[in-house]
Parts: sequence; structure tokens; C-alpha cells
Amino acid sequence: MPARSRRSRRLDVPAELAAAREGSHRAVARLVSVVSDGGPQLREVVAALADGSGDQAWVVGVTGSPGVGKSTTVAALVTALREEGARVGVLAVDPSSPFSGGALLGDRVRMGVHALDPGVYVRSMASRGHLGGLAAATPQAVRVLEAAGVDVVVVETVGVGQSEVEVAGLADTTVVLLAPGMGDGVQAAKAGILEVADVLCVNKADRDGADATVRELRQSVALGADGRAPGDWRPSVVRSVAAGGDVAELVDAVRAHQRWAREHDAVVPRRLRRAAAEVSAIALARLRRTFGQPGEGGLLDDVAGEVAAGRLDAFTAADRLVAEVEG
Amino acid sequence: MPARSRRSRRLDVPAELAAAREGSHRAVARLVSVVSDGGPQLREVVAALADGSGDQAWVVGVTGSPGVGKSTTVAALVTALREEGARVGVLAVDPSSPFSGGALLGDRVRMGVHALDPGVYVRSMASRGHLGGLAAATPQAVRVLEAAGVDVVVVETVGVGQSEVEVAGLADTTVVLLAPGMGDGVQAAKAGILEVADVLCVNKADRDGADATVRELRQSVALGADGRAPGDWRPSVVRSVAAGGDVAELVDAVRAHQRWAREHDAVVPRRLRRAAAEVSAIALARLRRTFGQPGEGGLLDDVAGEVAAGRLDAFTAADRLVAEVEG
Repeated sequence: MPARSRRSRRLDVPAELAAAREGSHRAVARLVSVVSDGGPQLREVVAALADGSGDQAWVVGVTGSPGVGKSTTVAALVTALREEGARVGVLAVDPSSPFSGGALLGDRVRMGVHALDPGVYVRSMASRGHLGGLAAATPQAVRVLEAAGVDVVVVETVGVGQSEVEVAGLADTTVVLLAPGMGDGVQAAKAGILEVADVLCVNKADRDGADATVRELRQSVALGADGRAPGDWRPSVVRSVAAGGDVAELVDAVRAHQRWAREHDAVVPRRLRRAAAEVSAIALARLRRTFGQPGEGGLLDDVAGEVAAGRLDAFTAADRLVAEVEG
Repeated sequence: MPARSRRSRRLDVPAELAAAREGSHRAVARLVSVVSDGGPQLREVVAALADGSGDQAWVVGVTGSPGVGKSTTVAALVTALREEGARVGVLAVDPSSPFSGGALLGDRVRMGVHALDPGVYVRSMASRGHLGGLAAATPQAVRVLEAAGVDVVVVETVGVGQSEVEVAGLADTTVVLLAPGMGDGVQAAKAGILEVADVLCVNKADRDGADATVRELRQSVALGADGRAPGDWRPSVVRSVAAGGDVAELVDAVRAHQRWAREHDAVVPRRLRRAAAEVSAIALARLRRTFGQPGEGGLLDDVAGEVAAGRLDAFTAADRLVAEVEG
């Protein structure tokens, strides 16, 4: 009998969703795979998830440069949330990469003890081929976890680049991790992270230079404070030693921001932004299809060739693409 | 007499371009500001730059996490290129941030001795408000520098996030910088940088752990080698101590990749990709205007509200945006 590939198997979406609602980890995994990887059933899954309940879980985005201890911090954060009795989902968002599809750093390895805890769902998101990329896939995966009854979703993004900051910035609470010496004020400002952070957390706070980093961050927040309106949330600056399990200040800061956001009607605007990013990403991906991707031999390649040769300027070339889309 | 703001002054574009061709640093600065910041004369400048000459300068992209020594390495690279007699442009690409508009880290501070060298042009790019973002602004700034007779343009991007990797990956030669201990193989793979790198450079190579990092990177390259076709370029892994001015291996590696690309017809495809990214970004930004940005009260906000409330799924919402654009 021929082996049936996991990839090509067609899901019974209502049955999978019912199983996810009963807490099935396998059903959650399969549904997250569809929204992460795309494929023929993506639209069906997304439609099934829009069930009138709206968002329920609190989404905590965690971002920071490689080496600051993001995975360790997320694991310690999950432990602390579990001790509070919360059901927790973790979405590890990797750039679309042939190397990052879970082969090098599997979900189980990443989360250690949590892999066997029925109250913790851990999934990697690679967004290869998803129509709309991570801006669309992440809210959809959050909805899968909400269906499974998760109270808190931790979205861990790799790196501090703009697109990942954007994904993390769509969370209800955005945590930016730094390490002593790596994340001084100027570097943090350069990376554009101060504006999106609700909580700035200096991890490895038992190392030399942690005090200086905390001080510089507090100064940077104070310096940038005039950019925020008087009633706005001011990012808190806290410390953690995640490798030693010490994330108490971080948990308190996340909970403090959550209370503040609920009391100040700050939740709905951010969820609207998240939905807008999702819908906009899908619509733009579809519009892009009209003129093709680079290398497909479509209209885009034709006009790009003219631009590269200096025979056409980029705006006139873009006019042609827009005219094609608008029919 | 009222002070005239620099920002609102209208440029005589043909005169500015003629001055840039004569080597005027001020004209180059003004033209780069237009393509970086956008504004009413953006289209006029871009049209004037499309003069039939095509690309001339070799574009070297340099990226890596905060703290690896990017600015120091770029400065040392510029010194080495100047010693070869090349005219050099540097574009420092920062995320769009109110903090990063040159106030914290001015062009002069950044480049030290090069600030007074007439053969070196250094500009920061913040891409605030540019139609099409950095994917569009960077090739346009490269054209300004080419008009000024620059032979090599070094594009320095902050961070290792996906969008910045993409900008760096559009260079003719893409250099990814790492530091000992920070950039081990798994982290590099996680950040998705191995695929875009033509040269992997371990900076601060006089520090402990440099040998291990070089070894791990070479193993990662070897591991990933099956993803590349037999005739493809294999990323070289080199060392530098930029703070001590030692970037000889890096310069050799860049020149080796340049020779390889020219001999293997690899230059044109990459320039086509760069032009395609530029034109596509402009066209998509214009299409996006039809349904509005989040918070503008346009159609996007309407459908996002339905999605956030669980009354509409994201794909059906996107259908409405696409229908609006297609008229």
C-alpha cells in the first residue's frame, strides 16, 4: 500500500476544529500547519475559525536579537503562566527559511518540559508560501489556539527586523528582550524597537552591565516620552534571569500592561490593527498575483527589465502594473 | 525675513543632478533625501535618474545583528576600497523610526575620517513616508550615487529581520556579519541569513570563540549546500577585526564574489530582482491607497472591524478590498 504523505492529506475541517475544541493537540497542530503553510484548505480553515466569538486570548509578543535568550525566556514565562493556572499557546515565528522548518530546532526541543503538558500548545510558524505572510498567518494561528481554549498566546519572533517587529507589535502586549551590553539605548533606538515595546526586559540580568543597560533604556524611554500622548502607556523596563527561571518582574509587567490596556480601552484598537494587517496582507498578495512575482516571466519581469536597463523609470513602470490590476 | 525650511524648499532637479555629476556632496545629499523621505518631487527625481545608463556601481549589502560591529566594519571597508582607488558611497538604512532620523547617530559621527574625503559619500536612509519603503528607496539612492560617479555602494542595514535581509539580499554582493558566540550556526539559520549571504564574516575575530563560530558557519554552509545548484556560488566564511582595521579577508571575499558573478552571468538576474522589488513595492503602495491604511476610516477599517468581531473571515474581507481596487 502506498504511503500517504502527511502534506497532501485532506483535513475534515469541522471535525478537526471540534477535536481542537476538545483540547486535541494533534488537531491544533494540523490546523496551525494549514494556516502557517497555506495550501488548498487555508481558506476553509480560516472561514471555520470566524465563528462570531471574536478574540479571547491575550496575545503576548516577544521579540529581540538572536542571543538574548528568547526561547529560554518564553519557556520560563510559560512555566510562570501555568503556575497561575492559565492555558498557554506558544507560536514560534521564524522567517521563511528552508533551514527553519523545525528540522534544526524542533518544537519539543525548544520547549523542554512543556512538551508533555496538556495545557501548553507549542507550534512553529514558518509562513512558507502563505498568502499574506506572517501578518496574516499569525492572527489565524491565534484563532486556532483560542478555539482550543487557550488564555494566553505567546508569539516569539526571531530577530529585530522591521517585519518581525511589526508582527510582535500586533500583540496585545509586546515584550522586547535585550541582553546586557548588546541592547544599549542607541542600538535599541536604531532597531526601531522602543516604539513598539510595552515592556522592555533585560534578560541575563545577573551579568555585568545589566544595571547600565537598564539605566540607558529608562533614559531612552524618558527621552522618547514626548512622542507619546500624556495618557499613553509608558514602556516599563524590567529584568529577568530566564535561565534561572526568574521572570517574576516580566510576568508582573505583562499583567500590569494587560490591566492598563483593559482599563483604558486600548485593547480594541490594537485588535483592529491586527485584523487590518491580516486582511490587507491577503488582499495585497492577491493583487500582486495579477502582475506576477519576480522570475515568473509576467508583466513585472518585463517592466523590471526596462528599469534595470535604464529605459524606464520605476514610477512609470509601476503605473503599468497598477493599470493592469485595475483592468 | 522668515527662515526658509530646508524640508519645504523646492529643488531644481536637473541642476541638482548636474551638480551631483560634478561630484557635489550637497547635491547628492539633497537628492538622496528626496528618494529617502519621499515628498512631492520624488517622482521627478526618479524620472531624471533613469537616463539610459543602467546600473554601474557594485552594490555591497552589509547586514547583521546589533552589536556585531557593522558601522566599524563598513568604515574599515571604505578605507580599504579607497586605498584601491575606488569612489565609494555608503547608504545606512535604518528602520523607519522617529528615533533613527540621524539625530542619535549622525552621518559624520558614523563615518569619522571619511566625512571629509571627497571620494566618499555617506547618507542615512530612514524611508519615513516613502511610497514603497526601503525596497524602492534603496535602488533609487544607489542611482543618485552612480550619477556622482561612485564605483562601489555599501548598503548597511540594521538588524537581521526579514525585510532588512531582503534589502541587503538585493545587493550585488551580500555580506552577513556575525560576532563570536552570537552567531552560531543554529542562530544564523534561524535568522534566515544563510540563504542570502554571499560572504559570512565573523567580526571581532580576536575574541574567544571566533574559531568555533567560523567552524560552525562552515558546517552550516556545507549542510545547506544541497539546497544550491552545483554551479552556484558557495558563501565564503571569513574573519575580520574591523576595530583594528583588519578587513583584508573581507575585501578579498567581496572581490572574489564580484569576479565570480561577472564570469557566471549572475549580475543581471540580481539587478532584475532589485528592479522588480522596487517597482512592485511602488505599485503595491499605490494599490493599498485605494482601501486605505489602518486608522484612516476607509474600507480597510470597516472590514477589519468585522473580522475582529468574528463576523467575517479574513479572506471574505480581502475579497471586498480586491473588488474595490479592481473597480
